Amino acid sequence: MIALLLSACTRSGAATQSQSPLAAWNDGPVKRAILDFVERTTTPGNNDFIPVEDRIATFDHDGTLWPEEPIVQAVFVNARVKAAAAANPGLKQRQPFKAILEGDLGYLRDAGEPALMELLAMTSANMTDGEYTAHVREFFATARHPKLGLPFRALAYRPMLELLDYLRARDFQIFISTGGGADFVRVISQELYGVPPERVIGSALKKELRRESGGVVLWRKPAVAVINDKETKPVNIDAHVGKRPVMAAGNVRSGGDIAMLEYSDRGDRPDTGSQPAASLQLMINHDDAAREFAYGEKDGASLAAARAHGWHVVSIKRDWRAVFAPAGDQQNPP
Amino acid sequence: MIALLLSACTRSGAATQSQSPLAAWNDGPVKRAILDFVERTTTPGNNDFIPVEDRIATFDHDGTLWPEEPIVQAVFVNARVKAAAAANPGLKQRQPFKAILEGDLGYLRDAGEPALMELLAMTSANMTDGEYTAHVREFFATARHPKLGLPFRALAYRPMLELLDYLRARDFQIFISTGGGADFVRVISQELYGVPPERVIGSALKKELRRESGGVVLWRKPAVAVINDKETKPVNIDAHVGKRPVMAAGNVRSGGDIAMLEYSDRGDRPDTGSQPAASLQLMINHDDAAREFAYGEKDGASLAAARAHGWHVVSIKRDWRAVFAPAGDQQNPP
Repeated sequence: MIALLLSACTRSGAATQSQSPLAAWNDGPVKRAILDFVERTTTPGNNDFIPVEDRIATFDHDGTLWPEEPIVQAVFVNARVKAAAAANPGLKQRQPFKAILEGDLGYLRDAGEPALMELLAMTSANMTDGEYTAHVREFFATARHPKLGLPFRALAYRPMLELLDYLRARDFQIFISTGGGADFVRVISQELYGVPPERVIGSALKKELRRESGGVVLWRKPAVAVINDKETKPVNIDAHVGKRPVMAAGNVRSGGDIAMLEYSDRGDRPDTGSQPAASLQLMINHDDAAREFAYGEKDGASLAAARAHGWHVVSIKRDWRAVFAPAGDQQNPP
Repeated sequence: MIALLLSACTRSGAATQSQSPLAAWNDGPVKRAILDFVERTTTPGNNDFIPVEDRIATFDHDGTLWPEEPIVQAVFVNARVKAAAAANPGLKQRQPFKAILEGDLGYLRDAGEPALMELLAMTSANMTDGEYTAHVREFFATARHPKLGLPFRALAYRPMLELLDYLRARDFQIFISTGGGADFVRVISQELYGVPPERVIGSALKKELRRESGGVVLWRKPAVAVINDKETKPVNIDAHVGKRPVMAAGNVRSGGDIAMLEYSDRGDRPDTGSQPAASLQLMINHDDAAREFAYGEKDGASLAAARAHGWHVVSIKRDWRAVFAPAGDQQNPP
């Protein structure tokens, strides 16, 4: 027993005492701000010390912890429609399935929510939770990124994995707050990020309890219960956590993370000497076409919010020494 | 650092090795079933061993972890209406406030949901989360149980506190799943039960993000978002935890916990030799008018479900050696 406890302690101690916690981050203002924030908030006696129970950090998923070009859940939906069309060729001529199979984005954009719901109903609803999870597992077992050529499970951003480890070693509780389906992300969150399912907050379908001969199951209905995006992210974080995060990370694309970063912002301004409470916000900017993708935002709202609030903009090109895990590790994702 | 780690390890070891984990429980089939379940599911090599990450236990609140006669949140609503009527005497003649102030349960029963919503709107909505939490804290600072004469904060059931401690020492994750408001219970869950806010699942009002000069706040709208009761308990547990509990505890009164217990039930039947997976269900029966309260259920559904599924019925009279903390401790609730 003692030996077991000691070995557990040694592992934890090793993580805490790691000498270079953010090796895949280039030295610069963002890395320094992260190290400084964590040091200030976890050092007893510091004015900015945050008790362990309040060290809540929330991370967006697509574009923040792994790529969103394309959205991985959309690739999954596409794969499920293809599988259905193989079994039932008539689907190839029926919208919105035809559009998905032919990559007709124009049709899908114009068809809007009813088309999306039909796709969700076919691929993600009208089945039990257990059946859905099995489909998602099957997808991740073999699916590869269409442009990067790597398994999706190898695409977690290495600097962000280091950041999660660093925060965990300092007793932060990490929550993922994703616009994607919570049930989709929960299948891989522990394996990829060390984040257990109970710390994943996301969009969700309505479900109902059904009594079957072997016991009860949860049945996935073809109707949306929660869309976790923009102003609803803080509301859903509150519903789930009941505490306000002291750190949040999101990315530039649709403005989807602005409200979550605002919610975590206590107005910490080390440069002005006015410090209501310490907090840290990261807004990742995808500006590296060579190593990942480069894209902006039509209205520039996310970068404008970052400027207005003094949030840290993470430039993938400038701030990340590496984007993905080393090649040797990519065959064996974390 | 080493000394700190060792002391942390010693504490954890001591808790795990406690010699009499359920001292406030009388010896009998229920206590034996609990000890046996925990022993089987946490002993490596046992056929029923459950990995730490799957040791999810869900507890109802009112009537399961503390008394529900009367419902404490109703006492809070009453106190808030009284405070409002003191400031605005006209309210005393306006329904449904008149009925609440005069204890006119007949009116409230007949008036139904619209009356309830008016009461919630006045006492629990149209304010920020921070304002609401301050009201609840103020209430718990002084409010006492009308019949038992003790502060509400001293009314956590001692046998259940022991059970929570015992489960935690064996690395179970405890979640509270309450029909009451999550925000109400979260104010006291850590202090009374050692359950942090992020592990409280409950009913909730709709909220919206509002931008104010000092930053964003969550505004409580006078509309219900979630009622956490009966068949929605499993749905909300799934939304929050993403894993199926292996243990659940509820109580007899309204049938509100039957579905939650079914959801945790894997059909474990040690007596028949058929064991799909180990799980434990407790249904508390309030049958002790001398030490707490005695009441039943009109349709007997909870006890019928317990019989049908082989769940363990906890008789407060027979199974609990003590109901509340010792008198000396009641002035200093846990």
